[in-house]
Amino acid sequence: MITVLRIGHRPDRDKRITTHVALVARAFGVDEILIDKKDSELERTFLGVCERFGGKVNIKTGVKWREALKNWKGQIVHLTMYGEKFDAAMDEFDRDGDLMIVLGSEKVPREVYEMADINVSVGNQPHSEVAALAVFLYKYFDGRPFKNFEDGQVRIIPNKKGKTVVEN
Amino acid sequence: MITVLRIGHRPDRDKRITTHVALVARAFGVDEILIDKKDSELERTFLGVCERFGGKVNIKTGVKWREALKNWKGQIVHLTMYGEKFDAAMDEFDRDGDLMIVLGSEKVPREVYEMADINVSVGNQPHSEVAALAVFLYKYFDGRPFKNFEDGQVRIIPNKKGKTVVEN
Repeated sequence: MITVLRIGHRPDRDKRITTHVALVARAFGVDEILIDKKDSELERTFLGVCERFGGKVNIKTGVKWREALKNWKGQIVHLTMYGEKFDAAMDEFDRDGDLMIVLGSEKVPREVYEMADINVSVGNQPHSEVAALAVFLYKYFDGRPFKNFEDGQVRIIPNKKGKTVVEN
Repeated sequence: MITVLRIGHRPDRDKRITTHVALVARAFGVDEILIDKKDSELERTFLGVCERFGGKVNIKTGVKWREALKNWKGQIVHLTMYGEKFDAAMDEFDRDGDLMIVLGSEKVPREVYEMADINVSVGNQPHSEVAALAVFLYKYFDGRPFKNFEDGQVRIIPNKKGKTVVEN
């Protein structure tokens, strides 16, 4: 099981970024998304995508992050521009156990760095938690990251020059 | 030379998403970023990051996208959830020529699909243009995507448990 924990979500400022985080998590094979601040609108948007495109991915907002970290039984990886190189750290992951991926916002409490088993950077440059999550999962799943969701209302068929959307 | 062209930017709604697009482009080795709507605030934010962390990446907002596409001499790839699988398309790229990467927003004009040489999807699921750009560039550069910028005010040194920021 893979869970993404998003810390420091500000519903007024981060709604779209955190929505992108949640959609990336879903598309790249995460089972559950936890967000620290309550945000019912974000939950609704996300569940609407799941209904239309398939996939039963849990989402929960208003989660106490410290407890979530403390109670986690598997490994915890924190994605941060300050961490060690993510690709070099790939051997440190226990592929048979559960993984929690922690994504911060602007300021991440020092505790998070300490509670994480591994702090990794997807490039030691400022860019985007959305991008960091995607590239991390792409590498973690070794280039086979994309879920096929069979239970949605529609499916998209790859097309070289336009759009092919098929009703299920 | 690699250029990212962002189409459909709405300064009021998309400022943070497009800023993330620009920062990913910079961190993953793009030379130039073009954005269709004028957005001086976004330009300032982006250039502030370049000054602090290094890298002379051009950014231009208020660019006529149709002209930019028409005048481009190299290949054009459009990242879209409707396209063919990006990893299967990697052989179609001319690595010796210039590449323009087009990223749309909510609605992309049909013309863009037609003017692009290649329409590729990073997973046929809705997720994020930020993520799509990052994973595409990660694959395009074959896992060696991250620029080292030597000319900034600071550098970040990978650290397993905290932050190491060094003044240049």
